[in-house]
Amino acid sequence: MNKYERGHFVVGVTPETISGPKPVLNNILEYFSTDFQEIEAALDRHFSSHLSFVNEVSRHILFAGGKRLRPLLTVCSARLCGKQDSEVYDLSAVPEYLHAASLLHDDVVDEGQMRRGKLPAYKIWGNQAAVLVGDFLYAKAIELASRFGDVRIAESISRTVSLMAEGEILQLLQAKTPNFEEAAYLEIIYRKTAALISCSCQIGGFLASASPEQVEALGNYGLCVGQAFQMSDDILDYTADADELGKLVGTDLAEGKLTLPMVVALKEADRPGKEKLLRMLRSGKPSVKDLEWVQSLFYETGSFDYTRRRAEELIFSACESLGVFEECETRNLMQGLAHFVMERRN
Amino acid sequence: MNKYERGHFVVGVTPETISGPKPVLNNILEYFSTDFQEIEAALDRHFSSHLSFVNEVSRHILFAGGKRLRPLLTVCSARLCGKQDSEVYDLSAVPEYLHAASLLHDDVVDEGQMRRGKLPAYKIWGNQAAVLVGDFLYAKAIELASRFGDVRIAESISRTVSLMAEGEILQLLQAKTPNFEEAAYLEIIYRKTAALISCSCQIGGFLASASPEQVEALGNYGLCVGQAFQMSDDILDYTADADELGKLVGTDLAEGKLTLPMVVALKEADRPGKEKLLRMLRSGKPSVKDLEWVQSLFYETGSFDYTRRRAEELIFSACESLGVFEECETRNLMQGLAHFVMERRN
Repeated sequence: MNKYERGHFVVGVTPETISGPKPVLNNILEYFSTDFQEIEAALDRHFSSHLSFVNEVSRHILFAGGKRLRPLLTVCSARLCGKQDSEVYDLSAVPEYLHAASLLHDDVVDEGQMRRGKLPAYKIWGNQAAVLVGDFLYAKAIELASRFGDVRIAESISRTVSLMAEGEILQLLQAKTPNFEEAAYLEIIYRKTAALISCSCQIGGFLASASPEQVEALGNYGLCVGQAFQMSDDILDYTADADELGKLVGTDLAEGKLTLPMVVALKEADRPGKEKLLRMLRSGKPSVKDLEWVQSLFYETGSFDYTRRRAEELIFSACESLGVFEECETRNLMQGLAHFVMERRN
Repeated sequence: MNKYERGHFVVGVTPETISGPKPVLNNILEYFSTDFQEIEAALDRHFSSHLSFVNEVSRHILFAGGKRLRPLLTVCSARLCGKQDSEVYDLSAVPEYLHAASLLHDDVVDEGQMRRGKLPAYKIWGNQAAVLVGDFLYAKAIELASRFGDVRIAESISRTVSLMAEGEILQLLQAKTPNFEEAAYLEIIYRKTAALISCSCQIGGFLASASPEQVEALGNYGLCVGQAFQMSDDILDYTADADELGKLVGTDLAEGKLTLPMVVALKEADRPGKEKLLRMLRSGKPSVKDLEWVQSLFYETGSFDYTRRRAEELIFSACESLGVFEECETRNLMQGLAHFVMERRN
């Protein structure tokens, strides 16, 4: 059976590490159902403002069916380094608050039309509220991060916030002065997505007093998973079912966003195809027919295939990074989570 | 001579603490000229992004003639507790970055028309850039704050960012559901202005390993100075010379902002006056004639006088807070700075 066949996930990366019956894909998250409950409770416990309006806007973005991938990685990383207690769940709220804050600001910046199947906050309460509640959540995250008595956690978190802002800015500049090289793309997604996922893993290590080698391994794992996550997002944006995705399909095209399939298609398409694609990227208002044309171009030029292959390589590297840890259930599950990133449908 | 007569400042608060000739107002900042140079150098040293666009936007707001009150208070506070070295200047950049970040966001939120005599960033580079460079500066501030190895500094800074966001949100809600009580006003300015000024003082104390009693005294001093600072701003907005102020006069009225003179006038004016004032606050587009009418109403109802008196009381308390420290030049100068806040013209 193909390792990446839809409907299954594989714990670990080599046949040697696989033992027993392979659980079906949808089940991997079920392994974490207790963790998810604890994560939800922690998220609920730490974000509150004494202003009910702030709570209302925060709840809208925080409790709207997020996947909780980042807190889960914090919890797993700490557990892999031997720490498992309520403090870990408290810390796991930090990256999710950062993520929520960045979504609030990104929707203002990108004028996003839908977020997790709902209207984005700025469309309901205005740009002002979205900007300020985003600031509030950033601050709450960093306030919480500084409570653990380990300066490395606060440092890692704030460095990540700078990177995330720079990533969004790069993307903004990209829309004005496009650079269609894969390197430019990787630079953006490192900052925009992978840095926070990597940080989510590292802080788990810090809290568990892991060795520098272990923290580095966790950071690499997160970096690879984060990049693969973004590439899988890039594919989903063109291929997913809108209801499952919780946002409109094809928004990356409408927003002129540089995605990996686009990078590949611009290199591989013939000249008329390339010119048509560039026109669409610039126009900002693709029709359904345009979108269908782009989808078939991406299939024809092998853009989806290439993207998926790159993501799979990254997942392989992610799993390999965890080699510094002894084999155990948590390590297997983290390797399974890395694969899950590619198999998800939203 | 009246203690608060324009053109003079008084170091200390009681005749006993005043010795020698009173320096003229404009001179107090000259006492700090070396400090200001070091502060500028520190500000320049720590904010940079590898993205030139981020640096350009950051510079626009960071180096546009800010008063550097917050960094100066950090430096003075540390010195009062016995610490004076380059680390203090490094730390002093933190509150100024936070201040700059909040200005970037506030201008987006309030649609400010002028800032320090220049167009605000969002008018030049768009809302998107202002939001994201604001995020970047917040993060840089917190990253820098976490480098001093004292978790209390990072904690105090991030708590202040939450408070500032809440303050702006309160002000936003205020515009929709007005509450004209002085308590509501004090609640807003505590968060919006005083919290950061108080934090600027406290972190200086933390860095100097001050006693809890000393840190508390510095915090109180900053809180009082910050509130007085905002009250003096409230007066300046209606009375200053636009060129000196660096922004348009009367913007608080146009933005429907709750200021202390307004609180008083709404209480003291007769019914027709009050109704006219409320209409103007709601209309959002006061004419020059409207503004003149409001100014005379504020004079007639004693609104400016009351505001000035409240600010003077706060300055008295600020100076009193420093009583836990031995009398010394730095203490005298900090008391002088508290008075300067009322005497400034911009």
